Amino acid sequence: MNNYFSIKDVDSIDTWVNEAIEIKKNPLSDKTLGADKTIGLLFFNPSLRTRLSTQKAALNLGMNVIVMNFTGEGWSLEYGDGAVMDQGNSEHVKEAAQVVSQYCDVLAIRAFAKLENRDDDYEEKVLKSFIKYTDIPVINMESATGHPLQALTDAITITENKPIHKPKIVLSWAPHPKALPQAVANSFVEMAQQMEADFVITHPVGFELASQITNEVPIDYNQENALKDADFVYVKNWSSYEEYGKTSQDQNWKITKEKMKLTNNAKFMHCLPVRRNVVIDDAVIDSDNSIVIEQANNRTYAAQLVLKKILETT
Amino acid sequence: MNNYFSIKDVDSIDTWVNEAIEIKKNPLSDKTLGADKTIGLLFFNPSLRTRLSTQKAALNLGMNVIVMNFTGEGWSLEYGDGAVMDQGNSEHVKEAAQVVSQYCDVLAIRAFAKLENRDDDYEEKVLKSFIKYTDIPVINMESATGHPLQALTDAITITENKPIHKPKIVLSWAPHPKALPQAVANSFVEMAQQMEADFVITHPVGFELASQITNEVPIDYNQENALKDADFVYVKNWSSYEEYGKTSQDQNWKITKEKMKLTNNAKFMHCLPVRRNVVIDDAVIDSDNSIVIEQANNRTYAAQLVLKKILETT
Amino acid sequence: MNNYFSIKDVDSIDTWVNEAIEIKKNPLSDKTLGADKTIGLLFFNPSLRTRLSTQKAALNLGMNVIVMNFTGEGWSLEYGDGAVMDQGNSEHVKEAAQVVSQYCDVLAIRAFAKLENRDDDYEEKVLKSFIKYTDIPVINMESATGHPLQALTDAITITENKPIHKPKIVLSWAPHPKALPQAVANSFVEMAQQMEADFVITHPVGFELASQITNEVPIDYNQENALKDADFVYVKNWSSYEEYGKTSQDQNWKITKEKMKLTNNAKFMHCLPVRRNVVIDDAVIDSDNSIVIEQANNRTYAAQLVLKKILETT
Repeated sequence: MNNYFSIKDVDSIDTWVNEAIEIKKNPLSDKTLGADKTIGLLFFNPSLRTRLSTQKAALNLGMNVIVMNFTGEGWSLEYGDGAVMDQGNSEHVKEAAQVVSQYCDVLAIRAFAKLENRDDDYEEKVLKSFIKYTDIPVINMESATGHPLQALTDAITITENKPIHKPKIVLSWAPHPKALPQAVANSFVEMAQQMEADFVITHPVGFELASQITNEVPIDYNQENALKDADFVYVKNWSSYEEYGKTSQDQNWKITKEKMKLTNNAKFMHCLPVRRNVVIDDAVIDSDNSIVIEQANNRTYAAQLVLKKILETT
Repeated sequence: MNNYFSIKDVDSIDTWVNEAIEIKKNPLSDKTLGADKTIGLLFFNPSLRTRLSTQKAALNLGMNVIVMNFTGEGWSLEYGDGAVMDQGNSEHVKEAAQVVSQYCDVLAIRAFAKLENRDDDYEEKVLKSFIKYTDIPVINMESATGHPLQALTDAITITENKPIHKPKIVLSWAPHPKALPQAVANSFVEMAQQMEADFVITHPVGFELASQITNEVPIDYNQENALKDADFVYVKNWSSYEEYGKTSQDQNWKITKEKMKLTNNAKFMHCLPVRRNVVIDDAVIDSDNSIVIEQANNRTYAAQLVLKKILETT
Repeated sequence: MNNYFSIKDVDSIDTWVNEAIEIKKNPLSDKTLGADKTIGLLFFNPSLRTRLSTQKAALNLGMNVIVMNFTGEGWSLEYGDGAVMDQGNSEHVKEAAQVVSQYCDVLAIRAFAKLENRDDDYEEKVLKSFIKYTDIPVINMESATGHPLQALTDAITITENKPIHKPKIVLSWAPHPKALPQAVANSFVEMAQQMEADFVITHPVGFELASQITNEVPIDYNQENALKDADFVYVKNWSSYEEYGKTSQDQNWKITKEKMKLTNNAKFMHCLPVRRNVVIDDAVIDSDNSIVIEQANNRTYAAQLVLKKILETT
């Protein structure tokens, strides 16, 4: 595999999930695969799970890890072709990407949506520029519009917890005090369409995700109706795609214990971090049906599978 | 050993000190003990000695090290049970602690006192929350009210430098332009009570440490009297416990060469960093009696002993 | 070798360049030389190439790497002898340097010029204080007045690309929106004087580098004249030494394709980061004659050579 930019880079989600579950059983079975190989983790935004789980995955494979925070440790980058760089940005991504790729064998990059201009965000200029100007594999650690390591993690977690019957998966929007990107929801929607499942999205009017991502996935504007008989409730806030970056704190959409009673004893999932008692009630996340901690644990194995595939083919 | 939260987790200070001194003679003798084990160092505050010496100790044991600065690199954490998280904090420690512990085999955490509310600080909510919500060992790299790696270091340093007779150890308060926590002093006092020594604390009226920590240790409000015949002078500023967080710059309490003449040619100790010519005069810290550099060196062996004990029992 | 503070620490630039080129052919040939040795990288300023290439070099030699950002992660340091430290600085370099050197086998330090006071900068108090107070080797990762790892890199890159005849090398000043240190130019000038080359410096009146550095190197205030028949054009902005820290954005000095036509099909070099279309036009840096990316690649081998020499002699 070359880059892991999008969940679309997964050729078969079932195969990948099974491979990741094998890795999870014996995480050190490939501990020399990455010998003398170096991964550079480039952060343009904060990170906890991704930062630690990706490092752990690389260490499990015997790789060297170099972490670089572009906020504070390096130079602010320019992305515009032909830009006259007489303002705040000190270095063009053309140089930065080529240079960094010479010191590393694999790059992993986090660069959130700015939520200022939809076209800018959906152009994915940071990740795509690095991919364009490097000749080493690039892994997306959450870009402006996608979080495919999270989506692969979610597929693993659903598979581990799925009932015998074809599961019903509900992606539910939830309120949030701060405008958040659509990245996690986008990649989850792309992933879920590849799974054998009944998949429904529920959110308030005006919070539709991009139609090129949701495709034919049914949208139910009535959350309680959507939750009925669900086997998995995946909760996530995202800001509006249409009125780009607008958020809502409408507490009617918070996930409560009462709403979970409408489900088929559903497992509760969230990518974390989560705002307790805003996005979900304590009673839900602290219940036995919550699998958010195991979900976060699977981040390591998703990252390790992606790294393993890259190391085996480069 | 499970956690190293407090100097009270040391069952026998003499035994531990001797073990640490053995490690110091041959720091690489256990260099495979930590193979395939990962320590996560979590910093909520600045750190120089602790950051570097703990990494060095882990490397000496062959461990992988992941460093995480919560200031800037991650999310700000909520600690309140039942909190409605609609303000600045993005993640609850319940999730953060459980998640991080899945990527690591040992955690070490630094989280200073805020000096705003005494009860909050003495509840030790950061360290205790991590201990509560993780099932891996947690090491205190200075918490709100204690710095047990420093105190263990101090015990090593005193043992290495002690005279034949039972030593007199004086802990002297010193002035400081900035309000500092009581953590170092607290742990030193707890440690010194376990040593075979005459131990005296001297400070201005109003700077008494918590009585549950000082117990029966004599307090002398006359610094010059306290210093008489001392074999070790351990200097440290702390802000008031009673008028919580109040500091003082009273230069009458600065340690000078004249005051050191009152001692029994005492060794001078300080945990560092130290404000020269405010806390102590150059003439004292630059004298042959100053052992602050060797003291800092011993930080590695204190950390390595604690890590070794954890690795041997998990 | 003890310290690598200045390009003057290179006894024979030709020999060193050849050794570095050998390392580049087989970067892992000394991968056990640094076993159980730890390098501490101390950053007082941002860094991308230096941060990553020095880590990579150390990893190639099998060393442990500890990275420390003094901006944010540690304490602000005091450098003045006899200072009464009742202001913002928490720790004196006397302690910091001695302490850090106990946890590491080699230190590498980045500390830029402040461009406020020329004497202060040219005293090199940060690097020289660390050298003074440690007894382990110290490597300059760009100090106030020099960047010798860059200059060694530049010598490697020139050697790899030089024509059969004795090359003409032109160091040309270029405009910049922000006042920059003289460090890169200084070390380049010191290095170039050691090479078999015709070496010319060109810059506007008032941007003379320190005469103790330029010595007898010819200065041409006419850029186009200087560029004639050049084999290498090394471009770099620096602020004024005379009117210390004054900069200029005079676009007449920008390197354009037209100016490059005056040369002998010269290779274009720059240490990066570079402001496109301010310092140089896109058409130049994107041309086949631009060797800036390979130049940046050579940073690894320059650092690795220096580290190797240190490891072999300590």
